[in-house]
Amino acid sequence: MKTILVIGAGMSSSSLIRYLLENSTIYNWKVRVVDQDIKLAERKINGHPNGIALSFNALESVERRPEIEQASLVISMLPARFHVDVAKDCIDLKTNLITPSYISPEMRALDEAAKKAGIVIMNEIGVDPGIDHMSAMKIIDHISAIGGKVHSFKSFCGGLIAPESDNNPWNYKFTWNPRNVVLAGQGSAACFIEENQYKYIPYSKLFSRIDLMAIPGYGEFEGYANRDSLSYRGIYGLENIPTIFRGTLRRPNYCKAWDAFVQLGLTDDSYKMAHSEELSPRTFINSFLPFKENISIEEKFKKAIGYDEDIYHKFEWLGFFDASKVMGLKNVSPAQLLENILVSKWTLDPSDKDMLVMFHEFVYELNGEKKKLNSYMVNIGEDSVYTSMSNTVGLPAAICAKMILNETLEITGVQMPISAEVYNPILKELEENGITFLEEEFDHQFIG
Amino acid sequence: MKTILVIGAGMSSSSLIRYLLENSTIYNWKVRVVDQDIKLAERKINGHPNGIALSFNALESVERRPEIEQASLVISMLPARFHVDVAKDCIDLKTNLITPSYISPEMRALDEAAKKAGIVIMNEIGVDPGIDHMSAMKIIDHISAIGGKVHSFKSFCGGLIAPESDNNPWNYKFTWNPRNVVLAGQGSAACFIEENQYKYIPYSKLFSRIDLMAIPGYGEFEGYANRDSLSYRGIYGLENIPTIFRGTLRRPNYCKAWDAFVQLGLTDDSYKMAHSEELSPRTFINSFLPFKENISIEEKFKKAIGYDEDIYHKFEWLGFFDASKVMGLKNVSPAQLLENILVSKWTLDPSDKDMLVMFHEFVYELNGEKKKLNSYMVNIGEDSVYTSMSNTVGLPAAICAKMILNETLEITGVQMPISAEVYNPILKELEENGITFLEEEFDHQFIG
Repeated sequence: MKTILVIGAGMSSSSLIRYLLENSTIYNWKVRVVDQDIKLAERKINGHPNGIALSFNALESVERRPEIEQASLVISMLPARFHVDVAKDCIDLKTNLITPSYISPEMRALDEAAKKAGIVIMNEIGVDPGIDHMSAMKIIDHISAIGGKVHSFKSFCGGLIAPESDNNPWNYKFTWNPRNVVLAGQGSAACFIEENQYKYIPYSKLFSRIDLMAIPGYGEFEGYANRDSLSYRGIYGLENIPTIFRGTLRRPNYCKAWDAFVQLGLTDDSYKMAHSEELSPRTFINSFLPFKENISIEEKFKKAIGYDEDIYHKFEWLGFFDASKVMGLKNVSPAQLLENILVSKWTLDPSDKDMLVMFHEFVYELNGEKKKLNSYMVNIGEDSVYTSMSNTVGLPAAICAKMILNETLEITGVQMPISAEVYNPILKELEENGITFLEEEFDHQFIG
Repeated sequence: MKTILVIGAGMSSSSLIRYLLENSTIYNWKVRVVDQDIKLAERKINGHPNGIALSFNALESVERRPEIEQASLVISMLPARFHVDVAKDCIDLKTNLITPSYISPEMRALDEAAKKAGIVIMNEIGVDPGIDHMSAMKIIDHISAIGGKVHSFKSFCGGLIAPESDNNPWNYKFTWNPRNVVLAGQGSAACFIEENQYKYIPYSKLFSRIDLMAIPGYGEFEGYANRDSLSYRGIYGLENIPTIFRGTLRRPNYCKAWDAFVQLGLTDDSYKMAHSEELSPRTFINSFLPFKENISIEEKFKKAIGYDEDIYHKFEWLGFFDASKVMGLKNVSPAQLLENILVSKWTLDPSDKDMLVMFHEFVYELNGEKKKLNSYMVNIGEDSVYTSMSNTVGLPAAICAKMILNETLEITGVQMPISAEVYNPILKELEENGITFLEEEFDHQFIG
C-alpha cells in the first residue's frame, strides 16, 4: 500500500483527488488530503474508503513533516510561493513531489539535492503550464524527427465560459483566481520576438494590440500577449527561433472593454483610495473621470471610451452606474474594488460549465518548403465543481502521480513535462478523458 | 567669524555659494564647500578669499563630522535620501541645518531631538518645494486675515527654457535632473480633489488630461497633475478645502508628444531591454511598434500617434528615425535609452537661459462673494551656470542661512518655510533679486 499526500483541497484539487480515489483500489493507494478547512477535504473525498481528510497547518514544517515522511508522493496544490519549503522537506524525507506551478529559481536550485535524494520533483504539470508544454513538445519533437525546423511558434490559452453557459455581454466568467485576472499583464512590458525583432507591448497597450483567431466549431477568439514569451525558447529547445509568442485567449470584444478598465486606472493595485469604504460602483468610476459640472457620469464615461456602445453596455451590465450600493471596502486599491464588482457578476452559477481553450500555431520549414500546423484543444467542464480548469490542471498531475507510483516514470531531480517519456503517456490518457488536441495542416501557399 | 559648510557643489549650488561668498565679508563668514570633485568646489568659489574648497566623502559620517562640528550651519545639497544621516550628526554636534528637499518621515521624526539640541533643521526651502510654500502661504494668510475663506487652490510650477533660448520644437530643455523628468508621474495615480470629489489620474492618462493657462507677457502653458496634491491641505492649514490641485508646467503641445513616449512604453524603467547595446533610436522605437512586413517604421509610428504631424515632427527632430547611431548602452531600461536620446538634444547650450514659472490660482469667499486671485512668477536665468533653477533653489536657502546666522530667525526643530517670520523676509529679498510675484484679482462674475 502506497500513500499519497495531497496538500490543499481547493477548487483546482477536485478532479485530481477524484482521479486518485477512483484509481486507489486497483493500485492499492491511500489518499490523505489535508486542508485548513477539514470540511473541504471531506467533501472532496466524499466518503471514499481509501481517502482520509486531515486538517493541520501545512505551511508549518513540523506539522507536515510526519505526513510527508509516511507518504510515497506529495502533491502540493498550495499557492506557488510555498512549494519550495515543501520541496526541501520532501528532499530530506526522500518523498517524491508534484506541483502544478512554474519552477522558481529557488526550486531550480534544488535539482541536485533532489537527484541525490533519488526523488523527482515534477513541476508545471497542470494546464498552463502543463498541457501547453506537453502538446507543444510533442509537435516540436515530431517536426524535428522528420527533419523540419520550426520558424514560428505562437501559442494561446484561455480559461473561459462554455458556450452553453455564456449568458453575459462580456462572454466571460471567473474560472480561476479573480485577483490574478484583474492584475493580469501588470509589471514590465510583454516581450516576444517576431522575425528576429524583439517586440515590447506596455501594459497600456496590452489589450488593444490583439490577435484574432477562429477555432473550428467554437467560433472566434482574441488573444493578448503574455508578459513572458522568450523563456520558452530555452525550455523547448528553440533558442534561435525567429518568432515566438504566447498569449491569453478571450472572446471577441472582451479586450477592448477590459482596456477601458486599464485606461481609466481601475486595475491599479499600487495605492489605496481615500475613503474607499464610501464608494459605490458609480462614485468609484467617477473618481477616474474629470470633474465637469452639469455633465452626467454616464456622459463623461461615454466620452472617455470614444462613444463605443458595446463597451458602455458591458459597463452598464456590471452595474457601474449604480449609486445605490456602497461597496464598504475600507482602505483598498482600485483593483480590489474592481474585483469586488466583477466577482458579484462573473461568478459561475452551480449549473455553469467552463471551457478551457488552447491553440498552437507552428510555421516550420521542411525540405525547403514552409508549412503551417495548427493544434488546438477545447475542453468543456462537467459542472461548477469538476470544471474544465479543475480537470485540465488536476488530471495531468494525477496521471503523473500514477506513473511515479507505478514506477513507469523513472526520472529524478527538478523536472517539467517536456520529454516524450512524460508527455506521451499523459497526453494519451488525457485523450481517453476527453482532453484532445486536433490538428490542421496547411501548405505554404496558405501562409499569410 | 562664523563657518558655513556647504555639502555638494553641483549645478543647483552655484547661486547659493555665490550669495554666501558675496555676503561673507560684511557678515564675517567662512564658506567651506565640500564636493567629491574638488575642481567643482574650486570653480564655484572662484578664488574668493572667504571660500575654502574641500574634497572628502561627505556620505561618511567620520569624514564629515569634524567639519560639521566647527560649523555654525550646514547646507546639505546632497541627494534627498542622504539628508537624514547628516541631520543626525547636526543634532549630535548642535549645528543648524538647511536642506532644499521634502521632509521625509525619518526627517520629521527628528523634530524633538532637534528642538532638544536647540538647532533648526530647515527643509523644503528651494523653489518647489520652497518658493511655492512661501508665496502660497503669504496669500493664504492674507485671505484669512481679511476674513476670507479659500475655496479652491490650484498651483503649477515648471522649469523651462527662456523664450530667447527656446529654439526646438518641444519648447523644452533640461534644467534639472533628466532622469527625474523621464520618470515624472510614474507610480500610483495622481490624486487631487475637485469640489470635494477625490479624483485620480493614472499615469497612462496623466499627459492627456491637462489644464491650459496663459501668463501675461509669457504666453500659454499647459499643466499636468502632480502625483500628490492632497498633503498640501494639512501643510497649508486648508484641511477642508473643496478643491486643491498641484501641477507641472510645460509649453503647449509638449504633453501630447510626451504622452506618445508613455503610450509607446518608452518611459518604462521596470525592465532591461534585450541586447540594448545594439539599439539605435530607430530600432529602439521599432521595438514598441507592431511587426508589419513592408510597412516602414515611420508609417507604423504615424499610425500609432493618430497621424499627428506635430508629434511626428517632434520625434523626427529628436532623431528617432535615425538608424546610423547605435547607442551602445548595455542592459538598460527603455527609460534609460529615452534619457540618452533626450540628453543629446535637450541639454542647455552655454549661452542658453532657463526660465522658472510658478502660477497659483486661488478662489476664495469674502463677505459672501466669490473672488479669484492669480499670483505668478516668471524668472529668467542669467546663463547656463547661474540658471533660474539655481537662483530659485539657492537664494531662498542662502537668505534663510543669513537669517539663522544673524539670529533674526529664532526657531528650532524640523521646519519648513510656511510661517510669516520665515517667508516675509525671504520673499522680500527674493524680490530685490528679481524673483517677483505679480497678482491679478478678479471679481466673481469672471470666475468660470
